[in-house]
Amino acid sequence: MQSFSVAVIGLGAMGLGIARSSLRAGLGTTGCDLREEALEALAADGGRSCRSPAETATGCDALAIVVVNAAQTESVLFGPDGAASALRKGAVVLGCATVPPAFARDIGQRLTKLGLLYLDAPISGGAVKAAAGELSVMASGSSEAFTAARPLLDAIAATVHELGTEPGQGSTMKMVNQCLAGVHIAAAMEALALGIRSGLNANRVFDVITHSAGNSWMFENRVPHVLNADYAPRSAIDIFVKDLGIVLDAGHGSDFPLPITAAAHQQFLAAAGMGLGREDDAAVVKVYQTLGGITLPGDDGE
Amino acid sequence: MQSFSVAVIGLGAMGLGIARSSLRAGLGTTGCDLREEALEALAADGGRSCRSPAETATGCDALAIVVVNAAQTESVLFGPDGAASALRKGAVVLGCATVPPAFARDIGQRLTKLGLLYLDAPISGGAVKAAAGELSVMASGSSEAFTAARPLLDAIAATVHELGTEPGQGSTMKMVNQCLAGVHIAAAMEALALGIRSGLNANRVFDVITHSAGNSWMFENRVPHVLNADYAPRSAIDIFVKDLGIVLDAGHGSDFPLPITAAAHQQFLAAAGMGLGREDDAAVVKVYQTLGGITLPGDDGE
Repeated sequence: MQSFSVAVIGLGAMGLGIARSSLRAGLGTTGCDLREEALEALAADGGRSCRSPAETATGCDALAIVVVNAAQTESVLFGPDGAASALRKGAVVLGCATVPPAFARDIGQRLTKLGLLYLDAPISGGAVKAAAGELSVMASGSSEAFTAARPLLDAIAATVHELGTEPGQGSTMKMVNQCLAGVHIAAAMEALALGIRSGLNANRVFDVITHSAGNSWMFENRVPHVLNADYAPRSAIDIFVKDLGIVLDAGHGSDFPLPITAAAHQQFLAAAGMGLGREDDAAVVKVYQTLGGITLPGDDGE
Repeated sequence: MQSFSVAVIGLGAMGLGIARSSLRAGLGTTGCDLREEALEALAADGGRSCRSPAETATGCDALAIVVVNAAQTESVLFGPDGAASALRKGAVVLGCATVPPAFARDIGQRLTKLGLLYLDAPISGGAVKAAAGELSVMASGSSEAFTAARPLLDAIAATVHELGTEPGQGSTMKMVNQCLAGVHIAAAMEALALGIRSGLNANRVFDVITHSAGNSWMFENRVPHVLNADYAPRSAIDIFVKDLGIVLDAGHGSDFPLPITAAAHQQFLAAAGMGLGREDDAAVVKVYQTLGGITLPGDDGE
């Protein structure tokens, strides 16, 4: 196991946590990111760093791609200095970004032709669980790919949902999860804003709803951001602009109507249009504030 | 305490549970319902039964109105043989139906003029918790009303959220809860249906999502109805046609846009339009089945 080596491309909150969990498990770990401070953070924990995907991937047993979207995943693998041609035969690639299921299927086919293994492996759990090595992974791929990825999966995940033998099934489940997560965030803000507009105290709404049938994981997690007037991005508005877009494209591609997802997507788009794309996704509440004229926690102090 | 007497009008799943919890707490309990079998069920547990609201209310200390909507609440109190004129001065009325906050305020004012106390007291928790005396009550009203209702509240509730001194505040919080509950049911069915359409196994979707950030109380509670192909109504489609209508009317009344709630309401309306109004609210999944062409659990056996 000591000879198992991992490459992580993309050292944001999730990727850095994955790289650190890999190091903590005793795996040789190399990271790659455009931002100097991310490379320094990894070096401080004993990781190596490289500047190009190709250099990073050279000689590794498992490559985790922890970037934002399909375009970046494509570029990391097949762009200039891409990783795909630098990987040794039989190495396994974990695609961790939230991407369209069809894209995951395509990547799997292209890597297979190069003699590489592919695990469609989107992740869930947030930065805290990434740092703790306790992510959930919604994974699909061949048994060979699962076997090759096992040391890395053991290092980074509390739960690996094995969803099938074909790339795309992991991304499909992640898409269903993001559909619900995005709708629940926007619905939480819509309902909270209505409560405030109707005269309720926002803290009381949180207390009561989190103990009632209206509760959701996202309501409980995101409403405190509003109560604390803290919109520093743990996950940004732009992420759900993208992810609900993936959901709606999938629905469009199979003539499947998704009216509630579409309504929620419009609210994230409105937030992005207001210039809030880089704020925490809880900032979708500001759309309701702007259109409905409510006072939010923190407004008095501004 | 032995001399405290309770009247319960409306002996559906919730009202019968309330009446039985009242009996179990040693309170003299009289019930009223149009259905003979409901009266017999109460009598079997030692409760008295009456045929008219006026007769039921005569001499009681606390009257719980556990009917479906505002129109029934109005009729019980102020219709022919209504309860309001039969109650002794100082008795307390608990309005437990989900009603518009403005209606709750109006009822409170009318009862006050008659020398009666009013607690705006919508309930949450479902039939099982009603039977166990463990409801959540979202209550507002004068301290005198809370004090007068205390023996009954102690008998029926695990939690009493005291939300203010004015009728309407309880119903406003219930409205916020129903907004989320309704959106979450429809979103659960939209996401589950998308997963099935995209090739996922419905049981796997349930397993993964209930352990992920996309989870909600309603997803966890209602999706099993679909997995078991069991649409016997615990709570019917028609309830959310009504309750999300109340939410949207409140938004309309204060120029407050609620696009996600509106989208969810349309899906419940579509289900009602398909003739499913009396089925369990999880049957909103059949709208997606009809429009999107998916196979649901139980379809093979039909």
